Amino acid sequence: MSLLTVGSVAFDAIETPFGKTDKIIGGAGTYIALSSSFYTQDQKIVAVVGDDFPQEMLDTLTSKGVDLEGLQIKQGEKTFFWSGRYHNDMNSRDTLVTELNVLEHFDPIIPESYQGVDYLMLGNLSPQVQRSVIERLTVRPKLVAMDTMNFWMDIALDELKKTLALVDILIINDEEARQLSDEYSLIKASKVIRAMGPKYLIIKKGEHGALLFHGENVFFAPALPLEEVFDPTGAGDTFAGGFMGYLAATDDISFENMKRAIITGSALASFCVEKFGTQRLLEITKNDVAERIEQFVALANFEMVQTI
Amino acid sequence: MSLLTVGSVAFDAIETPFGKTDKIIGGAGTYIALSSSFYTQDQKIVAVVGDDFPQEMLDTLTSKGVDLEGLQIKQGEKTFFWSGRYHNDMNSRDTLVTELNVLEHFDPIIPESYQGVDYLMLGNLSPQVQRSVIERLTVRPKLVAMDTMNFWMDIALDELKKTLALVDILIINDEEARQLSDEYSLIKASKVIRAMGPKYLIIKKGEHGALLFHGENVFFAPALPLEEVFDPTGAGDTFAGGFMGYLAATDDISFENMKRAIITGSALASFCVEKFGTQRLLEITKNDVAERIEQFVALANFEMVQTI
Repeated sequence: MSLLTVGSVAFDAIETPFGKTDKIIGGAGTYIALSSSFYTQDQKIVAVVGDDFPQEMLDTLTSKGVDLEGLQIKQGEKTFFWSGRYHNDMNSRDTLVTELNVLEHFDPIIPESYQGVDYLMLGNLSPQVQRSVIERLTVRPKLVAMDTMNFWMDIALDELKKTLALVDILIINDEEARQLSDEYSLIKASKVIRAMGPKYLIIKKGEHGALLFHGENVFFAPALPLEEVFDPTGAGDTFAGGFMGYLAATDDISFENMKRAIITGSALASFCVEKFGTQRLLEITKNDVAERIEQFVALANFEMVQTI
Repeated sequence: MSLLTVGSVAFDAIETPFGKTDKIIGGAGTYIALSSSFYTQDQKIVAVVGDDFPQEMLDTLTSKGVDLEGLQIKQGEKTFFWSGRYHNDMNSRDTLVTELNVLEHFDPIIPESYQGVDYLMLGNLSPQVQRSVIERLTVRPKLVAMDTMNFWMDIALDELKKTLALVDILIINDEEARQLSDEYSLIKASKVIRAMGPKYLIIKKGEHGALLFHGENVFFAPALPLEEVFDPTGAGDTFAGGFMGYLAATDDISFENMKRAIITGSALASFCVEKFGTQRLLEITKNDVAERIEQFVALANFEMVQTI
């Protein structure tokens, strides 16, 4: 089944305790599309870049099955740029520079050939832009997932709530879930947030794994314990991309299959953090992902017996 | 198989954001023995109390199969007392009062009838006291587990290392593992700590679950997401008690069975935090524990398929 990703395609400059990069390619849309490409080759993207964005990366996306008709290239304008510095614990970071550039007036135009897409992943963008994508699709996708961040809760909470009312799955981290719900307990937070619209909620807890909520069901996926987290940038988007790519490829949105999709997303995210930016996602093979998934099975698998 | 617990039997006074208690019964030995009693009735305890300790709780322990011959009751002396206040996040606390009382000169005398015990759980005590118990047992138990805390790392690291060299399993939390190993990554920490002696290491991460390390194997057990953590006091000891009680009852120290023991300990710990002190452990039945274990199975269980 086809997957449409809407999200930033951008430049990042990253500092971690292990080193720093010049401008490298980043952006939620990039990570989502690269990650989901391990599972589905029927992919479309709606995004915007300036004329400074390298053709090489566009060719890479095309080679991985990503249809770029919805990627707007704005002549004479610059690509979105973000720069940040991670703290020693790698769990928090300071934003050093945000240059919106082409993203400031981003109008997510949907090519006619994209109509009828089966799965939709809305990467972190303004809730108005996210909502306009849903409204411009003439047939509602089988599943609409979205990411957001605390920034939009701070400055555009009403808009965010209007968009939340239209989606099936929200994928956010624990801090964002607490802010959005005003509840510390993630169980309570999950109820408050799901009352806002999304029937499914995924709360990402970074190195502590991820929770999936639906009705009375809860599933917990561990994160793989790693010797070193080299660069967490894009890990959440890589997770979302693996999750949605797996669902689109299997075309099964049962709770049991969503568990598998979360493990798949977690496996892909565990690669993402091993090197700067998208580097590891561009090196690994489907076989590497399959082996990593086996590590998750070994890590989380247990079988209770009835002898006692 | 028989289980010997060595640990404090004490009074606690606890403040949480939900309320406060007067002096109630606590102590690592108490929580471990109550928790393991759900699985093994062949239990012994080595501990010390003053003559102020209520006979009622001793009768309760006896009724649960705990042999109290090794419990010293010091006439004219007072029981160990700890008082603490939890912060709003329930993950950190301040110690308000510590009165060592009978614990100050605790000599862990092993009754002759205790010799030949199969499993040994050393609750958090000074490493010298823990080591003297191991040395006084004429036959080495099948499995020796110990807990410790950062306090001993601060003031008695050399003694702690001598004791660590003699045990099979260390059960500590993530903060303690990082301090003991001087490594932030828990994978790296696990290697450093296991090089000190214990072949098995359990790192408890509170609401984020627990990790078991042995050789190249890692197992991750989630914590049950809870609406409310009412009082975390004793949760770690309850976990250890359930773990060792399950191992003693099944008499199987394979890695697969240790996974089950960890899930069992996690289930018991999830009850412990629901009310102040030992209250919940005294209310629940074995059937309640079995139902809670089923919730862990539902929470953590997934099955990958080979269709993709």
